[in-house]
Amino acid sequence: MGRWVPGARGRLQRAAFDLFAERGFEQTTVAEIAARAELTERTFFRHFADKREVLFAGQEELTARIVVALAEAPAELSALDAAVVAVGASAEIFGDRPDGPRARQAVINAHPELRERELIKMEGLVAALSTGLEGRGVPGAAAALAASSAVAVFRMAFERWLRSDDGRDLGTCIREALGELRAVTAG
Amino acid sequence: MGRWVPGARGRLQRAAFDLFAERGFEQTTVAEIAARAELTERTFFRHFADKREVLFAGQEELTARIVVALAEAPAELSALDAAVVAVGASAEIFGDRPDGPRARQAVINAHPELRERELIKMEGLVAALSTGLEGRGVPGAAAALAASSAVAVFRMAFERWLRSDDGRDLGTCIREALGELRAVTAG
Repeated sequence: MGRWVPGARGRLQRAAFDLFAERGFEQTTVAEIAARAELTERTFFRHFADKREVLFAGQEELTARIVVALAEAPAELSALDAAVVAVGASAEIFGDRPDGPRARQAVINAHPELRERELIKMEGLVAALSTGLEGRGVPGAAAALAASSAVAVFRMAFERWLRSDDGRDLGTCIREALGELRAVTAG
Repeated sequence: MGRWVPGARGRLQRAAFDLFAERGFEQTTVAEIAARAELTERTFFRHFADKREVLFAGQEELTARIVVALAEAPAELSALDAAVVAVGASAEIFGDRPDGPRARQAVINAHPELRERELIKMEGLVAALSTGLEGRGVPGAAAALAASSAVAVFRMAFERWLRSDDGRDLGTCIREALGELRAVTAG
């Protein structure tokens, strides 16, 4: 088997999600994931530190994509609008159908320690957005509040998108949640 | 030594914070904390599960106090105002001087695993506020967004209060941060 296998990463992720759903997260071993993907354990460990990281590898790509989108957002946008446009760029990563993200979220929701890990990764996104907003000239306090507000909007929208079955896209859910945040915080 | 010692809990907390500051968190043992407080290890374990919990025991009392304050907040307040009034009740617990909370926070900030623990406790506060708001008749999405906004305000205010040296109280910092959140989220 060659050192580099095209699509190995995606095959491992799909195999892992399928096995987590079939047998449960704890009961699934790295050996089983590799076998299902028709790859070796060595190949698995070239892509992921452990089976937990299969679930969170995408979250780091997501944060990187969002930081780039924030830097590219029009300069005239307010801090919150820029941050929300940036998290909206995640829609390109997730694509149109919530089936994959839904299977992943079901595994995370069933395990308190995975939920904690997800929460910590979300805090990493808040920090990255806050730093990015400061880079756009937003003062520290406003940057931190806009970043945490944008992530609250994203979390609510993402949860709704996963639950939806009417074909709404994530971007629509984000715009809707932003409107609700503004209604809640209006003085 | 009697089974119940008046103020044992507070003496253990003070002894622990002093030792964490002097020697570092890892280097401090439960035996040393008990000895410094002139109490036994058995007494320590009647109050705290481990030395980490000395740092977080107060956070659970805080959440309980905030939930009560939310239930008592005037019915005519908006969801966000009620949640912010509730987190403001924490000012009574912390008292006037930030010295104690500042020492505690310095220990937490120096240890990534303690910061993660703090973040998870904060998420518990968001969940408790959200449930409390639903109990006041606030719809689920608005309750979740108001709860996370109030906790973002609290975190910013608390951090500023710890850094301040001009005698400002926590309540003032909370009102200030709420004004900033409203400026950031205004459409």
